[in-house]
Amino acid sequence: MDYYVGIDLGGTNTKIGLLNIEGDILKSSIIKTLSSEGVDKTMERIWGVIQELAKEANINIKNVKGIGMGIPGPVEDQSIVAFFANFPWGTNVNVKEKLEKITGIETKLDNDANIIALGEAKYGAAKGSKSSVTVALGTGIGGGIYVNGMLVSGFKGAGGEIGHMKIVKDGRVCGCGQKGCFEAYASATGLIREAVSRLTVNKQNLLYTMIEGNVAGLEAKDIFDAAKEGDIFSLDLVDYEAEYLAMGIANILNIINPETIVLGGGVALAGDILLDPLRKKLEKYALPVTLEDLKIVQGILGNEAGIKGAVGLFS
Amino acid sequence: MDYYVGIDLGGTNTKIGLLNIEGDILKSSIIKTLSSEGVDKTMERIWGVIQELAKEANINIKNVKGIGMGIPGPVEDQSIVAFFANFPWGTNVNVKEKLEKITGIETKLDNDANIIALGEAKYGAAKGSKSSVTVALGTGIGGGIYVNGMLVSGFKGAGGEIGHMKIVKDGRVCGCGQKGCFEAYASATGLIREAVSRLTVNKQNLLYTMIEGNVAGLEAKDIFDAAKEGDIFSLDLVDYEAEYLAMGIANILNIINPETIVLGGGVALAGDILLDPLRKKLEKYALPVTLEDLKIVQGILGNEAGIKGAVGLFS
Repeated sequence: MDYYVGIDLGGTNTKIGLLNIEGDILKSSIIKTLSSEGVDKTMERIWGVIQELAKEANINIKNVKGIGMGIPGPVEDQSIVAFFANFPWGTNVNVKEKLEKITGIETKLDNDANIIALGEAKYGAAKGSKSSVTVALGTGIGGGIYVNGMLVSGFKGAGGEIGHMKIVKDGRVCGCGQKGCFEAYASATGLIREAVSRLTVNKQNLLYTMIEGNVAGLEAKDIFDAAKEGDIFSLDLVDYEAEYLAMGIANILNIINPETIVLGGGVALAGDILLDPLRKKLEKYALPVTLEDLKIVQGILGNEAGIKGAVGLFS
Repeated sequence: MDYYVGIDLGGTNTKIGLLNIEGDILKSSIIKTLSSEGVDKTMERIWGVIQELAKEANINIKNVKGIGMGIPGPVEDQSIVAFFANFPWGTNVNVKEKLEKITGIETKLDNDANIIALGEAKYGAAKGSKSSVTVALGTGIGGGIYVNGMLVSGFKGAGGEIGHMKIVKDGRVCGCGQKGCFEAYASATGLIREAVSRLTVNKQNLLYTMIEGNVAGLEAKDIFDAAKEGDIFSLDLVDYEAEYLAMGIANILNIINPETIVLGGGVALAGDILLDPLRKKLEKYALPVTLEDLKIVQGILGNEAGIKGAVGLFS
């Protein structure tokens, strides 16, 4: 039987899993990435862990037919990392070549958000859908597009960077330095920015009471929690979130027309209080044909999406 | 040798061509669509023309291995037309089945804008690019996305409907009934709307003189012509066009990150007076990585894009 390794390379921790092609995890491990030691050292440590995992699972390493990896940064041709977000590992690094040289095993990589989308498409919430777009609503908004059985990784590895789609001309400044990005409005951070701004002039609400005035520590979850208690102030914020989320997702629907939208990240955990108005508001922005039989679901793979999706590069 | 038929089904005229798989046109013909006679009659007339073309080209009809067709409307699974724009041909019509029954030849179809994009990708301005998005700037804005060797046709055939991406929240009303669509700003019609609006309050300009005050007959070309003469009023309008065009195209870059953008339609004929500011303005809206080595070119297939692209469904 053939086995595959999925690697989810993170800024702090790296997850490594040994899987079969159906995406079942046989063994997995989490190590510190220790990126300051350099890319080569990290790759060698990863190879050590892979060999250990195979041993523990009683699998001959020769039966490991592929290594897939998700990387924080744009990846060209499933091989070359243009730059690593937060890592001092230089530019245009051919990680595929490095890892293949160390391991002797075919290696493929892609951007981590794309890999999560691939995981949900092949083994998760969008399994069975011909096409899906995964929208990760966290600190920023990441995305991955799956069509015709493959990822849309992009010419320079920037496919699926939906968070930086502009939805307001000369709008709110984004972390990327440009203005009016989707993620400046609809990410958890975007929602919090709006909430903080409103709390400056309105403290007579349940949200402010709930967080005991600790505006600096406000989280998106607090807003949804207060809204669920019926706080009008927070319900207005949820409406704001749903409105911009609808505009951004509708643009994806009009451009890609996928069968399924998978929502991931902390904001998606809000559930129906966000998803119900989102569905309604999509009718304002999306062409009606793109809403026919459209499925909007929450991601189901959680922390395993990275290693499963990485193996999806081989299935 | 194998041959293929490309059909460009239009509201008034239908182009039919006999081609080889390299996209060379051996014989072609244009007939009236006469859609009021119904879909079956039209398909039978098309089959008659195909047989004639084969005869004229001295090709045994048995060597025709595929029929490709571009259709004005969303096409599901390269088979079923959800609805025909402007044709009284009903909904969810399986045109593939109909034509295969009449001809005995494998048939594939797709939306006409997608087919034009496929033509430019396989035989035209984006030939050799791994991925391309064709943006047709005419009365509306059509689009087609080509990645991983295939079209992104969409779950319900609405892939590439970039003209209805929303770029202004609650913005200008579009022909589709929604608000703030890309094409309400950056299509020829969008530009003309803006020009007419400005001409209402400003008639002291070369443009107004050039069109002899015939505002109702204003065309996009007039604006570019006056701008090329140095008319400040018209140069401002070109700046307006370039700005919204940049915003929309940058969104496509951020989502798809294609290797090539092909610009087609009447507005693209403006040339450098539009393309130069467009390139500059893209830096404001597109992630820098998506602009690396990006090619922005004008379409080259013109009227032949439809029949060539239709054959591209088989190559």
